[in-house]
Amino acid sequence: MTKRITSIKEMTAIANKHLQAGESIGFVPTMGALHDGHATLMKAAKQDNTVTVVSVFVNPLQFGPNEDFDAYPRDIDKDEALVKGIGIDYLFHPSAEEMYPKQDITLTVGRLASVLEGAKRPGHFDGVVTVVNKLFNIIKPTRAYFGRKDAQQLAIIEAMVEDFNQDIEIRGIDIVREADGLAKSSRNIYLTEAERLEAVALYNSLQLAKDLIDGGERDTAVIEEEITRYITSYSSGTVEEAAVYQYPELIKVDTLEGRCFISLAVKFSKARLIDNIIIGGTK
Amino acid sequence: MTKRITSIKEMTAIANKHLQAGESIGFVPTMGALHDGHATLMKAAKQDNTVTVVSVFVNPLQFGPNEDFDAYPRDIDKDEALVKGIGIDYLFHPSAEEMYPKQDITLTVGRLASVLEGAKRPGHFDGVVTVVNKLFNIIKPTRAYFGRKDAQQLAIIEAMVEDFNQDIEIRGIDIVREADGLAKSSRNIYLTEAERLEAVALYNSLQLAKDLIDGGERDTAVIEEEITRYITSYSSGTVEEAAVYQYPELIKVDTLEGRCFISLAVKFSKARLIDNIIIGGTK
Repeated sequence: MTKRITSIKEMTAIANKHLQAGESIGFVPTMGALHDGHATLMKAAKQDNTVTVVSVFVNPLQFGPNEDFDAYPRDIDKDEALVKGIGIDYLFHPSAEEMYPKQDITLTVGRLASVLEGAKRPGHFDGVVTVVNKLFNIIKPTRAYFGRKDAQQLAIIEAMVEDFNQDIEIRGIDIVREADGLAKSSRNIYLTEAERLEAVALYNSLQLAKDLIDGGERDTAVIEEEITRYITSYSSGTVEEAAVYQYPELIKVDTLEGRCFISLAVKFSKARLIDNIIIGGTK
Repeated sequence: MTKRITSIKEMTAIANKHLQAGESIGFVPTMGALHDGHATLMKAAKQDNTVTVVSVFVNPLQFGPNEDFDAYPRDIDKDEALVKGIGIDYLFHPSAEEMYPKQDITLTVGRLASVLEGAKRPGHFDGVVTVVNKLFNIIKPTRAYFGRKDAQQLAIIEAMVEDFNQDIEIRGIDIVREADGLAKSSRNIYLTEAERLEAVALYNSLQLAKDLIDGGERDTAVIEEEITRYITSYSSGTVEEAAVYQYPELIKVDTLEGRCFISLAVKFSKARLIDNIIIGGTK
């Protein structure tokens, strides 16, 4: 039975009770609009820990003034049904007033937020780390689960936990995809029917890149060019980013070497989709 | 017997062990050069908690480029002797490399750092909250102890714990003074012999202000003028700040009302001293 909690004080009291009993807490922070990607994170949390918490909170701090904060899909009852189905113990769903009665002090991300999504969305990752740091202090998880789709977010959360010595294990979980390869995302609902069919071009272009690399290609400019050419040919999307970065350092590389990821951001009429693929090394 | 710890990992493992045993942890963060003021904080921590930790770390992040980071007094063996004498369990004394192998993400204080010491020392309180937030995550205290001499610092630490939902009780401890009234401070050693005698003017001017207020004065401009006149008459110090603020909001007031504090900053040849007095209300 999932218990819905809206009070920070109650959530922390529950966390303390479980920790004092020697139990581990697995935590999946989300903005709701839950899909199979989230379900995979939740199942991993359930497998690894005694107690599980999922948060649903659309965090105003991580949306820019021209972004989709108001339009972001919200359906807490549907989310709760999914969470219950998986057997999560607690659904933490605070109001914005509960989370931010004031916030005079904030976290600021440096170099790691100066590239990729961070460069396009000023302040976005400051908002992400501020809310995640707060949620970690409220829920006191032993382990927290994040999808690898938001690769930059995962790298920045890992950096935050290191930089602030939070005693929490961060687990990155592989991207969950639709049958045709499109990465699952709460924002896929913004796609038109035609765009939904075209959107597989993101995944296919990454597979094409992988084939090039398997064939010996190391020049990232060539790889980026081929990806852009593919997406432009097979979809109506505009490629906003197709680039190769070191992971988790998020440094752009000219020649593929060591552990890297290819990051994609493609703009359709209303949806902006991201996807990525890790090349070399394992985590 | 006090155990000296230099490793973050070891310190957190010790904290976890005590917390899992249901014990409370009292924590006093310091920059060393310990004096009777610190001793009072430590004794309070010892009285309230099962286990006590004192940290000694001269935090480079909270010093400006023209401030006294290099000159700041350091004597860890003397500090350890004092800590042992009080019966503190753990002395946490990490290196700068241990605390800051990197720090891409930092905390930024907003309005609360725009006045008083914060206005004179840009970035100072960002450095303070960054290191204290880290120390809180490393040591996981039940309660942490701060002197009321640094009134703005105490207000900002309280705001940080609220803003980031750190599950820690902050206790403010009254200023400890020399026999003549001078507030104890690690920076008093910078005073010349003559200045040391004059420095009592800070305390006396605050007592004068208290007398004025007890006599019915409510105009803070008058109070500030009288303080400045007194210090200028009875010492060679330069008054950098003599002002009345609401506590803990740190909003400057024209008319004394509710809970306020009178904040003083006086510059001598090498020492810059601060002092304050709380007026109205209790904590």
